[in-house]
Amino acid sequence: MSRVRTLPIQTASATYDVLLGEGLLADLPQQLRVIFGERPRRSFVVTAPEIWGLWSEAFLAGFAPNESPTVLQLPAGEHHKRLAALERLAQQLATAGADRSAVLIAFGGGVIGDVTGFLAAIYMRGIDFIQVPTTVLAQVDSSVGGKTGVNLAAGKNLIGSFHHPRLVLADTAVLRTLPPAELRSGLFESLKAGLIHDRALFEFIEQHTEALLRQETGPLTHVIAESVRIKACVVSQDEREAGLRMILNFGHTVGHAIEALTHYRGLLHGEAVGWGMRVAVEASRTRGLPSTEADRILAAIDALGLPPLPRLTARRLLNAAAGDKKRIGGVRHFVLLERIGRAQVVKDLADDELLQAIQRGLKLGRSTG
Amino acid sequence: MSRVRTLPIQTASATYDVLLGEGLLADLPQQLRVIFGERPRRSFVVTAPEIWGLWSEAFLAGFAPNESPTVLQLPAGEHHKRLAALERLAQQLATAGADRSAVLIAFGGGVIGDVTGFLAAIYMRGIDFIQVPTTVLAQVDSSVGGKTGVNLAAGKNLIGSFHHPRLVLADTAVLRTLPPAELRSGLFESLKAGLIHDRALFEFIEQHTEALLRQETGPLTHVIAESVRIKACVVSQDEREAGLRMILNFGHTVGHAIEALTHYRGLLHGEAVGWGMRVAVEASRTRGLPSTEADRILAAIDALGLPPLPRLTARRLLNAAAGDKKRIGGVRHFVLLERIGRAQVVKDLADDELLQAIQRGLKLGRSTG
Repeated sequence: MSRVRTLPIQTASATYDVLLGEGLLADLPQQLRVIFGERPRRSFVVTAPEIWGLWSEAFLAGFAPNESPTVLQLPAGEHHKRLAALERLAQQLATAGADRSAVLIAFGGGVIGDVTGFLAAIYMRGIDFIQVPTTVLAQVDSSVGGKTGVNLAAGKNLIGSFHHPRLVLADTAVLRTLPPAELRSGLFESLKAGLIHDRALFEFIEQHTEALLRQETGPLTHVIAESVRIKACVVSQDEREAGLRMILNFGHTVGHAIEALTHYRGLLHGEAVGWGMRVAVEASRTRGLPSTEADRILAAIDALGLPPLPRLTARRLLNAAAGDKKRIGGVRHFVLLERIGRAQVVKDLADDELLQAIQRGLKLGRSTG
Repeated sequence: MSRVRTLPIQTASATYDVLLGEGLLADLPQQLRVIFGERPRRSFVVTAPEIWGLWSEAFLAGFAPNESPTVLQLPAGEHHKRLAALERLAQQLATAGADRSAVLIAFGGGVIGDVTGFLAAIYMRGIDFIQVPTTVLAQVDSSVGGKTGVNLAAGKNLIGSFHHPRLVLADTAVLRTLPPAELRSGLFESLKAGLIHDRALFEFIEQHTEALLRQETGPLTHVIAESVRIKACVVSQDEREAGLRMILNFGHTVGHAIEALTHYRGLLHGEAVGWGMRVAVEASRTRGLPSTEADRILAAIDALGLPPLPRLTARRLLNAAAGDKKRIGGVRHFVLLERIGRAQVVKDLADDELLQAIQRGLKLGRSTG
């Protein structure tokens, strides 16, 4: 096994590690013992049929027969990220006799992680859980930071809790079976991390786009590690999204609007955020982001390969964005870039301004798509 | 308006007041301004048709037209305390444009308080809420302490969060329209509070049973205030139920089992706890509770007027009790009395011991019922 990177996460309410490396899955039983002691706790793995079909053998290999986790399945896809699915899982836990000492293991992508984390947050008012993310998106973003939740018909992640995992174990070997679109979706979140906080990461992605899309282990592991480091840094300073953490939502206001209007079926999350970042870059350009930097960012987004945007009008997107969670007391909080590597939250972005940014960001997009 | 009692609650994560008095409802708008400032926040009252039909006028009287809360209805009854009902409410909040600054007001009994509190805990990962409890049970018990949640088919309160209200406003005038069975149900929880923590409260209830059942304001307000004080004391010391707080579950292991087996329809919660306390007293008797005290407690329970127990076998109750949340790592935690006013948690109550206590506690019960 190659080098394991340990990235510590420390927030006001929790301390845990992200372990990142090739073949780490084999280490999971040992890691559980490190955290929970030698006396085994009952564990339940929540996973999706696709990932379990490919990786169940590797996942289970290191467990002794008496400590093997019970398997609960959640079908893949954003439309299963709902309270009804969560209730079915909770009912299965209860029927299997899971008590407050039970440990959940989320083994899958962002949906699996979000639902499992939220289930852990509210089952018997809170039990322990572990993240074993299997997509780039989940490894760089959703598995770190303690945000868990499900969607409502009215919008994404409108129901949820802050609940931190006891460990994030990210095995880069698992990414090998990832569809190319899923890889790209994750890289958009890494690009976002660079844009808001670390010019060097942005430039690394810019310079290694092809190697990353070919999934070369070295560059990919570097990008994942740096993305986690940035997320950890932001989340450590602002666990409950009182201020700084909001910059992580760069590109997400319009990204979420696209997802909501297409019922989470049109694009992958990172792809929607890619389009949303184009809009946010245009809005930033009118507020002082140098035009050369704006163009450079748009080129980097397009180089990762944005799929065509579903047919949506700017006006509908504007209205959908109005319902975004980042509205507080009726005031829209919107994340803009000052420079590559530095973001700011503004509260005075008018509807007109956003509408024009949507038109510009997506017009360019249409010719690309 | 008669004297208002202010009972401060202080836990590791929250500080708030319980205000208790006759006619307090008229004060609600002013109290909201005290907590949230003069700039009004959007508020949403979650209530049940019965209570709203009787008390909406008094509830709304003090609100200025522009600050009047939006009304959301939840049908009464334990079987509506489910995720599906919560999702409907959340969807209504989102559709109405409720954001993170919105305030929920729970106006009703325990079910309304538990569901509304949980909704506040998980809507946009947590918003503020206020408890305005309208039953004795909710005023003395469920509105204080931060436990919120809903039921699963597999059991009561298996899904939930710890989330404290910003204020509990308990108007004793509202209790006047309470059905006698609901009054009695609440008094069982007060009796429990005395049994586990305050011999004087137990003796007060013992000596004033008839006045309490006639709903005389003086004795009833005293009992409510003392019950809240006990709950506050226990919860302050152990917010997350690591130890001491568990004693609040005296009578609840078997009480919950009765409720689960009758699908929450046979008895009111306090009544089921009344039967559960009979069992817990019998278990305590074999572990050192003096027999004279045990008999005195059984007499006090019966004097409040237990309704007949639904037809259930001791074996089924034992099995249902095995799924109780108070099991941790496969070990049953059971609350016993050492003396009136002093409780202890034991981890070694064997199935046989519990079975015999169920048989004794409910056999006596059957002849009473």
